[in-house]
Amino acid sequence: MTAPIMDTYALSAEARTLERSVMRELLKRATAPGVISLAGGLPDSALLPASEIAECAAAVLRRDGGAALQYRPMFEPLRAWIADHMRQRGVDVDAKDIYITNGNQQGLTILSRLFLSPGDLAVTGAYTFTGVRQVTQGRGARVIGVPVEADGVDLGALEAAFAQRPSLAVLIPSYQNPLGVTLSDDKRRAAAQLAARYRVPLVEDDPYSMLAFDGTPPAPIKAYDEGWVFYLGSFSKMLAPGLRLGWIVAPPALGTRIVTLRESIDLESSTLIQRTVHEYLSRELLPGHLRRLNAANRDRCAAMMDALNAHFSGLADWTRPTGGLFSWLTLHDESADTMSRLPDAIEQHGVAYVPGSAFSVDGRGSNTVRLNFSACTSDQIREGVARLRDVFA
Amino acid sequence: MTAPIMDTYALSAEARTLERSVMRELLKRATAPGVISLAGGLPDSALLPASEIAECAAAVLRRDGGAALQYRPMFEPLRAWIADHMRQRGVDVDAKDIYITNGNQQGLTILSRLFLSPGDLAVTGAYTFTGVRQVTQGRGARVIGVPVEADGVDLGALEAAFAQRPSLAVLIPSYQNPLGVTLSDDKRRAAAQLAARYRVPLVEDDPYSMLAFDGTPPAPIKAYDEGWVFYLGSFSKMLAPGLRLGWIVAPPALGTRIVTLRESIDLESSTLIQRTVHEYLSRELLPGHLRRLNAANRDRCAAMMDALNAHFSGLADWTRPTGGLFSWLTLHDESADTMSRLPDAIEQHGVAYVPGSAFSVDGRGSNTVRLNFSACTSDQIREGVARLRDVFA
Repeated sequence: MTAPIMDTYALSAEARTLERSVMRELLKRATAPGVISLAGGLPDSALLPASEIAECAAAVLRRDGGAALQYRPMFEPLRAWIADHMRQRGVDVDAKDIYITNGNQQGLTILSRLFLSPGDLAVTGAYTFTGVRQVTQGRGARVIGVPVEADGVDLGALEAAFAQRPSLAVLIPSYQNPLGVTLSDDKRRAAAQLAARYRVPLVEDDPYSMLAFDGTPPAPIKAYDEGWVFYLGSFSKMLAPGLRLGWIVAPPALGTRIVTLRESIDLESSTLIQRTVHEYLSRELLPGHLRRLNAANRDRCAAMMDALNAHFSGLADWTRPTGGLFSWLTLHDESADTMSRLPDAIEQHGVAYVPGSAFSVDGRGSNTVRLNFSACTSDQIREGVARLRDVFA
Repeated sequence: MTAPIMDTYALSAEARTLERSVMRELLKRATAPGVISLAGGLPDSALLPASEIAECAAAVLRRDGGAALQYRPMFEPLRAWIADHMRQRGVDVDAKDIYITNGNQQGLTILSRLFLSPGDLAVTGAYTFTGVRQVTQGRGARVIGVPVEADGVDLGALEAAFAQRPSLAVLIPSYQNPLGVTLSDDKRRAAAQLAARYRVPLVEDDPYSMLAFDGTPPAPIKAYDEGWVFYLGSFSKMLAPGLRLGWIVAPPALGTRIVTLRESIDLESSTLIQRTVHEYLSRELLPGHLRRLNAANRDRCAAMMDALNAHFSGLADWTRPTGGLFSWLTLHDESADTMSRLPDAIEQHGVAYVPGSAFSVDGRGSNTVRLNFSACTSDQIREGVARLRDVFA
């Protein structure tokens, strides 16, 4: 057997373009013993409802037998539950408008393949989730990064970008990854109107809304829709990431295309997982889980804010989230390079973070850091932020 | 809220090209009461191991707690089990060569995106699984369909196609979908050699091998690999489709690209499903399941062969599978149009099948039919074939 090297194979343009997600590589290095990781985007494993999920899976398999392990179209009771959930959040939809996915990354894949051809123009936040960059820049789109302020994306810049007639726009309106900021209600309405006026398919990537620990989650942009907003929801952050389950809300006119694209990717979502999650939801276990999760996240975010006050006052600014998983630190020293400091941070100081430039559409933000407060205890967060101060001292 | 129509949106070239899978639409219509469906590609739900999977899921969640519901890299013990399974089948691989997927359709998606750009040339069987057509023709590739004989693909035609330097080839060597035929060992060796000689990435799509009910499964093409064979394996047919779990075997040089592509599509496979399946495998429950499954399939295939002898002798030829799920019927009347007869077959005669032309890369095969023998009882199969005779009488 020969030992082929990579240059042996002629790869597609797409495969050559796609960047390795820095964040995912990092997560591996940050799991060494003694390292406090503020890098992840994970809920705390200790807070995930393992015994309830076990009971629900067992109940489903007892009730449905082999049918729960079979190929099946989307599970209608799950679609109905999601539609009801969306209506409670102010979105006028029916079960038939819900398309089950394996989480929001798959939703991004489907919608980007639906609307975006290589060379097309796409619009995203200037700093955005690396998975959004993979389905836009990674697929050969030219990307306009719109600045994001304390109350979300800059509307003037958004309109200027929409005026260039992009094929797709992606916004993360609530507790944005990576900045931790939330789009105001007025801006939500305006974004929906701009999408309609300029006829731009606007993808609302919304995995974090139910993680509101200070007040109630805002109504989605989709609640103000004039026909151009596509909503992505996920059970990953509000229930458990390892289930891999989410949904798209889209108009019926596109339903066949979405289902066909989905089938071409991986046929359908696990019947067992769909039914187990529906069982969990129909037992009304979610509200209690969210209360526990958000109470922990509120405390941990407060611990992070306190620690940042103690260690970074005068050295940096940071966002003050009211939900979600992340805060964003901007060092006043603009020559700071958080990317080049990272190996030292992990190996010498025992703390991991994601350099902000990993989220930048144009490589800016060398003096910024994304900090996660959901996956560590408050004590670990306090210690982690103290170590972070040493890294940048 | 406006009610947008489909023409409202400017879709990508890919979304406009992709065909709705005829087979999937059919499956919906064939579930009406009283209809005997020989159309599916499913195992019998009654034979799926629901209680064992429930026990395994419960054991995993009890042992691992929230870690089983968390984001996680591929589950290493599962990769190790699969590598061992492949070695037992004559393929010299290590756990690091195994990439977990959500089943073979996702493997096809990943490898086609790795190697195939729009406008490139791809090679498949002249009749092939509709999912293969979706990731080749559906993504804008030009496709050469190579004739498939009783012992698999025609080697002369394969070499002539490879001489045109395609970017990708996809073969289903064992109990091929839709024809039910199996590539001989000599042809397997030759196909691996041709792939290396012409430097064509050859995807071996192999979901059915463990469904050998007459003799042992042949060694994969990958066992004869000279560096150009990419293997796709799946738990869908050998264990349960509703789990959505499979794997790619690929050289380490391409590992980072494969993992990156996978992440861009939907991050990773369900941690809970990976661990549950591994628990099932490590309890050595699979051999018993396969014995029961293959014993049933053997009987049902025999019932179908008997019924075809009784009703179609002199009217048609058909393949005699030694494993898998399908036989292929070719009516002697070349003017027969099995596609146009289908609505009548379902509504008037109460029998469903897939018209062979649905699997053709160039629309041929109007006088052919794919028949499934795994999802119905032997009595239903006998009655279904009798009804089929009435349809084409």
